[in-house]
Amino acid sequence: MTAPLFERLALVGVGLIGSSIARAARATGAVRSIVASARSQATRARVAELGIVDEVAESNAAAVDGADLVIVCIPVGQCGPVAAEIAPRLAPGAVVSDVGSVKGSVVRDMAPHLPPHVHFVPAHPVAGTEHSGPDAGFAELFINRWCILTPPEGTDPAAVERLAAFWRKLGANVETMSVAHHDIVLAVTSHLPHLIAYTVVGMADDVEKLVTRSEVMKFSAGGFRDFTRIAASDPTMWRDVCLANRDALAGELHEYRALLARLQTALEAGDGDALEAVFRAAAECRRAHAPRLDAE
Amino acid sequence: MTAPLFERLALVGVGLIGSSIARAARATGAVRSIVASARSQATRARVAELGIVDEVAESNAAAVDGADLVIVCIPVGQCGPVAAEIAPRLAPGAVVSDVGSVKGSVVRDMAPHLPPHVHFVPAHPVAGTEHSGPDAGFAELFINRWCILTPPEGTDPAAVERLAAFWRKLGANVETMSVAHHDIVLAVTSHLPHLIAYTVVGMADDVEKLVTRSEVMKFSAGGFRDFTRIAASDPTMWRDVCLANRDALAGELHEYRALLARLQTALEAGDGDALEAVFRAAAECRRAHAPRLDAE
Repeated sequence: MTAPLFERLALVGVGLIGSSIARAARATGAVRSIVASARSQATRARVAELGIVDEVAESNAAAVDGADLVIVCIPVGQCGPVAAEIAPRLAPGAVVSDVGSVKGSVVRDMAPHLPPHVHFVPAHPVAGTEHSGPDAGFAELFINRWCILTPPEGTDPAAVERLAAFWRKLGANVETMSVAHHDIVLAVTSHLPHLIAYTVVGMADDVEKLVTRSEVMKFSAGGFRDFTRIAASDPTMWRDVCLANRDALAGELHEYRALLARLQTALEAGDGDALEAVFRAAAECRRAHAPRLDAE
Repeated sequence: MTAPLFERLALVGVGLIGSSIARAARATGAVRSIVASARSQATRARVAELGIVDEVAESNAAAVDGADLVIVCIPVGQCGPVAAEIAPRLAPGAVVSDVGSVKGSVVRDMAPHLPPHVHFVPAHPVAGTEHSGPDAGFAELFINRWCILTPPEGTDPAAVERLAAFWRKLGANVETMSVAHHDIVLAVTSHLPHLIAYTVVGMADDVEKLVTRSEVMKFSAGGFRDFTRIAASDPTMWRDVCLANRDALAGELHEYRALLARLQTALEAGDGDALEAVFRAAAECRRAHAPRLDAE
């Protein structure tokens, strides 16, 4: 095993992502020691019980004390207050990062609180499952997944490279892009799909007068089931993500609704060519990338 | 192995579903012999080569000759002409069925052609993959899937029960419902999800000016990927299904668009409670059925 990339990793928040980072960082020897904090006493106790970190701190501020890598792994809506909380205790030279699915709001909320003597490198590991909490994490979560770094202009390239090396050590592929580009890419690939899946599954509940919920589930192999996995994701987290990326997401949703309106017109007019054109483009888009998607 | 339920099964059409029925009927001993026909010479040759049926007939009419079970396994849009083609050669007492994803249009198109001396029992095995053609089938496709029978009023209950026994033999669970109810249940659980998945995947292609297709695929683990599997389904088949179930589907699509419009308003107003209410209902709907869904 090579030398650790960081001496002391502080994880602020230990849900699915935080606990997976803890497990992966330990399994790969990416850091020498791991300290974690969590908002609730129950989570802190559970993390100690799981034994996936070296030390559980009583507060977020205490956790970051002396850490050369701090990763905030909490819902995006809480990043501002938590940055204010940890700022006074951050060690000079520390790399401070996060795992939020939206980068614009996180940078806007966290950056003003952080002292100039730390390196702020926002990150987003594009990985997850529909499960939540410290028990749901696993060391392999990031293997062959992408981790997107969105360092603000002027960030020390050496700090960016150290964080990139950390994520590569955990098995991820690393890509760097601007905050704004990240948020539009994720609106398309993640936030809109979640919003749509929640809506489809929620609507199936609405139609209960005509079709029972039990029928919906029984016959879900016809397609519906593909939506239910992502619709099982944490509703509070996704509410926050949608609000945090409101502008980009609202724009994509608007586009999507316009496309659906055109499809409704085609459907009602019996315009098979128009339907097939949309279906065919989508099927080909998938086919072009099937080897990669199927391999994952 | 128990006695076969039918002497001679004729499969008119040997794609994913037809070839899976052939394989499953043979593996389970559900029928004594299997004859198949297909529109194209290439498919007929391939089916003969695969050796999954006892006999390949040169025409649909020749295939049904002497068969006591006839299952039409072709796109819903072709059921009318094919019923006209096979009608003169159907044996007295034969059970005639299909596998279409829409029942209203199939009954409307097939029933007028069928002679009074056969039993018409429309069926829909709710099973499939995104792959097509005789090579894509497998004997286990129907195991623990639902097969819905929609016998018109006045159908001989003994014929319905014989077909139900056949599907159970292939591993399916059988449910009987009216044609109209089937079509609304499937609009909700299958046709709308397909239309939506195609639209989402198709749209990702549209935004290519801002986000490259390669980026969409790279970061698809964030949610998008769950849509790509069903969007890889056969576009022509799904065009026909959507048109065939146009009324029910248009109604559901209308409801869905109204719900999306409300979500857009909530999103733009920053109304987190409204978003969360929809997300939470969906997540709970899934959770209530998770054991069944996860087991499948």
